Amino acid sequence: MAQATSLRVEAARGDRPLDLLIEGATLVNVFTREVYPADIGIAGGYIVHVGAPTWQGPEPLARLQAHGKFALPGFIDTHVHIESSMMSPAEFAAAVLPHGTTTVVIDPHEVANVAGLRGVRYMLRATADLPLRVALQVPSCVPAVPALETAGAEFGPQEIAEMLSWERVIGLAEVMDYVGVIGQGERMRHILDAALERGVVISGHCPGLSGRELAAYIVGGPDSDHEGLGYEELLGKLRLGMAVEARVSSFSESITMLGAIVRQLGFAPPNLVMCTDDIFPPDLARCGHMDHVVRRAIAAGFPPVDAVRTATLHGAQRHRLYDRGALAPGKLADILLVSDLSNPRADEVLVGGQLVARAGRMVVPLPQATDDLERENTVRLPRPPAAADLALRARPGQQRERVRVLSLVPGQPRGLETIELPVRDGVLDTSATPDVCLIAILERHGRTGGSSLALVKGTGLQRGAVASTVAHDSHNLLILGHTPGDMALAAAQIASWGGGLCCVEGGRVLAGVPLPIAGLMSPRPLHELAPLVDALGQALQGLGMPGPNPLGTIFGLALPVIPRYGVTDRGLVDTATQAFIPLWADEE
Amino acid sequence: MAQATSLRVEAARGDRPLDLLIEGATLVNVFTREVYPADIGIAGGYIVHVGAPTWQGPEPLARLQAHGKFALPGFIDTHVHIESSMMSPAEFAAAVLPHGTTTVVIDPHEVANVAGLRGVRYMLRATADLPLRVALQVPSCVPAVPALETAGAEFGPQEIAEMLSWERVIGLAEVMDYVGVIGQGERMRHILDAALERGVVISGHCPGLSGRELAAYIVGGPDSDHEGLGYEELLGKLRLGMAVEARVSSFSESITMLGAIVRQLGFAPPNLVMCTDDIFPPDLARCGHMDHVVRRAIAAGFPPVDAVRTATLHGAQRHRLYDRGALAPGKLADILLVSDLSNPRADEVLVGGQLVARAGRMVVPLPQATDDLERENTVRLPRPPAAADLALRARPGQQRERVRVLSLVPGQPRGLETIELPVRDGVLDTSATPDVCLIAILERHGRTGGSSLALVKGTGLQRGAVASTVAHDSHNLLILGHTPGDMALAAAQIASWGGGLCCVEGGRVLAGVPLPIAGLMSPRPLHELAPLVDALGQALQGLGMPGPNPLGTIFGLALPVIPRYGVTDRGLVDTATQAFIPLWADEE
Repeated sequence: MAQATSLRVEAARGDRPLDLLIEGATLVNVFTREVYPADIGIAGGYIVHVGAPTWQGPEPLARLQAHGKFALPGFIDTHVHIESSMMSPAEFAAAVLPHGTTTVVIDPHEVANVAGLRGVRYMLRATADLPLRVALQVPSCVPAVPALETAGAEFGPQEIAEMLSWERVIGLAEVMDYVGVIGQGERMRHILDAALERGVVISGHCPGLSGRELAAYIVGGPDSDHEGLGYEELLGKLRLGMAVEARVSSFSESITMLGAIVRQLGFAPPNLVMCTDDIFPPDLARCGHMDHVVRRAIAAGFPPVDAVRTATLHGAQRHRLYDRGALAPGKLADILLVSDLSNPRADEVLVGGQLVARAGRMVVPLPQATDDLERENTVRLPRPPAAADLALRARPGQQRERVRVLSLVPGQPRGLETIELPVRDGVLDTSATPDVCLIAILERHGRTGGSSLALVKGTGLQRGAVASTVAHDSHNLLILGHTPGDMALAAAQIASWGGGLCCVEGGRVLAGVPLPIAGLMSPRPLHELAPLVDALGQALQGLGMPGPNPLGTIFGLALPVIPRYGVTDRGLVDTATQAFIPLWADEE
Repeated sequence: MAQATSLRVEAARGDRPLDLLIEGATLVNVFTREVYPADIGIAGGYIVHVGAPTWQGPEPLARLQAHGKFALPGFIDTHVHIESSMMSPAEFAAAVLPHGTTTVVIDPHEVANVAGLRGVRYMLRATADLPLRVALQVPSCVPAVPALETAGAEFGPQEIAEMLSWERVIGLAEVMDYVGVIGQGERMRHILDAALERGVVISGHCPGLSGRELAAYIVGGPDSDHEGLGYEELLGKLRLGMAVEARVSSFSESITMLGAIVRQLGFAPPNLVMCTDDIFPPDLARCGHMDHVVRRAIAAGFPPVDAVRTATLHGAQRHRLYDRGALAPGKLADILLVSDLSNPRADEVLVGGQLVARAGRMVVPLPQATDDLERENTVRLPRPPAAADLALRARPGQQRERVRVLSLVPGQPRGLETIELPVRDGVLDTSATPDVCLIAILERHGRTGGSSLALVKGTGLQRGAVASTVAHDSHNLLILGHTPGDMALAAAQIASWGGGLCCVEGGRVLAGVPLPIAGLMSPRPLHELAPLVDALGQALQGLGMPGPNPLGTIFGLALPVIPRYGVTDRGLVDTATQAFIPLWADEE
């Protein structure tokens, strides 16, 4: 450290050539909110000079002309699940760096649910040598609800404490179990204590919380949120000093409402930061990454400089990453050059003073990660399901069954209905109710080998089947379909890939996305992956699934933390009472 | 920790009575810059509720009516030397708490120069049980210039590292040796490395630095400054992301200029904080403490809410004290109630939810510190000087001497003049030059027993003598006077007190301030101490010393880091070349 610092000091004072001088830029100053011409000198990966556009030291080793361009700090995504991009960390980096995202704070919640500590270690290893700076928050809720589902791992206080001691681990990730925090349930309390004792940042997740419950949640430890949507909720959380993570994800966006709040307050409060949370490959390919969030912020009414501050300095301060988030001496040389400050797109992206992307494309090779976990098939079923395994059998002797059905209505909590179905050859017959289909969740972590079979109404799927090993949060094998045969085919296809998404109709695979890394991620680059995911989405739409985001519907079906009902590998669940519900309406 | 958190969470959610409910207040929100009515609920020393003015939980254990008052967070002084107040830490706390200062970040630079690690430990012990929250930064330059003076201790990298491991030690204090930082001198580099390796805040001190030198200084580690005065310098440092510590001290103020900058920028940048640095007892008694800085800020053009933010949230974030600086759930219940937001004076001051001061007076007793160091006489002279020791003798056989004289001209660097003086009875006779007097510096730490004797012109002292063990930075015994007899009397008086200030004329003590704690601090409360210091100042003015702050002149005479010349226990020094200068003009 000593020597590296000394070399940078020598370069700063002009006794050693700069590695790079960026000339002619217009600096966006995130401290003072000013915009003015300044050159930027870089040595040893850090900024060592920001000043009047005439460097008077010795001839720099390289120069970069930035006349007519604005220089901004690299964007900081304060909360993102790389797994949602369905890309390996390396390919994720290649996809987001050209969009100006130079630091991400990741929550490897999904891979942790599949592979536990190994999964988290994998994310650290796979990001160690990337030009993207990756800090990690420890997944706090693995599994989301231990009593209701079988994940690939369970994190208690000891695992949390162990991970918090690892390098580049900077906090506890979104504490979704707000009921546990507010109620000070034993599991949550001990997990929070592990983080409180170390004094690390504890991130939150508390949609809709307000008043005394919200205060109790904050007092319990977590002090951020990215779930709020409404005006009152968002402003209320800002007022309470929570780090409000303005989000533009594939599921949801809060930036429009926050733009109205910023306009009203006249500035972006220091506790307002930005994140992408979950972005699917097609959205990433079409819209971009943090640059898209910033553009949306500006469109929503953020003054451009405040949008930049929010995406840089505020995020750095939130996560206590003091070495970045601004263009100033002593900061890491993570720098974007953009031509239009009101519609920023990165012409050049520098990380640690190295040009890594230009005109939307990477210009440096990425290390090709070769990791045990990447070569491992994590779809551990006792055997691939046969069609017969996926038929919903009536109880012996029944001619008709009154059965409970998970019911989806857009914009409403997931409900439960009771319907009566005929029985044919011992199997419930849904052929007369095309809005009802089968759902199977197969434990795929090699732990119980168990599975559940139920019915769901309102997915929109009219024919065929779709299967996925992306199935929040335990990421068991989820199969949705109208015929056990199509369902079995989709499952077999996925099992052979080691995970992924597959759409089948009439014994024919319509579309598929292999996700061999933990059943969640692909080693393919974005330009190959996004078309596959798009094709799968189109296939699903062809089978009747509505809306722009049928994948979101499928991925969330097994999530036992969404009100009010759900289905896991262990059966139908009431997420409010955290109890199982019998399939048959005449059973309690 | 677990249990305490749980109790607070229970109170927050309304399942346990609040300890205190502050009702009817108008909240100053330092996040959103809004001001609106809100009640504040407190439990276990923390804020657990901030909300609509109707608490709906169980009956609180106590209520505090705050109708018509503004509630603000307690003020945070980001840089202060308690020793400059000449009070013990306990009496300092009693003096500043009624002024709304609830957290101070101290640099025990003076006591460290006298008593080394023991002195720093003393400051930690003496502040451990105070209602004032005291965090400590490690003095970085003890002594200021090792080659030129004899201090009571020397701190190298090992001592720095040891202190950084102590509780409540949060960083490295003002790194004054900017030449050492920029030049990467060995001593300074190792001291900085000790701090850089631990990732703690490194505070700076770099008056007048700009351009490449300033960048080199920041790149070297320190990233704050409280010395800047001019518009260009202050704005320049803000632009570079330095924590600019707006200062109102007994010597200097930068708040007026910063007010102009805040008006121009339209807001107070997040890296602008506030400090008092050095405040003498009379100023503290007359003007107040951090409340005075805030009032001065408002008078200088800070919007009141921005002045409050700067004095609270910004300071907390600067020093990474995430548990304070705002009125929000989960923060320490350090709260001020003031009637006039544009001229804030604390009607009530709460620390950790306890009322500690009301209407300018403490309402809780302070622990009476009894510490070894407080009972120890740190004025360790071989023997008190006799008058003959303080006579400046000519070289043998000389009838006249051409002698170098330290020369003070207001607003200019300290100069050096040569004057010719007659010799009478072997002693230089200054009786015909009343603007020239003797200056003696006696090493008083029991280390060398050495002393120096020289002449100084332009102090304004016309008659008599003054002595002080407050003599930056080594705090040796400084004696200024016209007759060796008066000088010896002043020194003897101070030695008997164990340190302090004393003014003598014609064999009579005119005024004195005993400072028995390390020769720097008094155990007396402010209301007793301030009049003594005032009387001493008046006595000095009576002896001809000009201006409002003669003490400042005296205290700085032995400081070897002020351009361009000075005098230490080892003789006349050139502070630029760090070399000694012979007294006699015909010697080189």
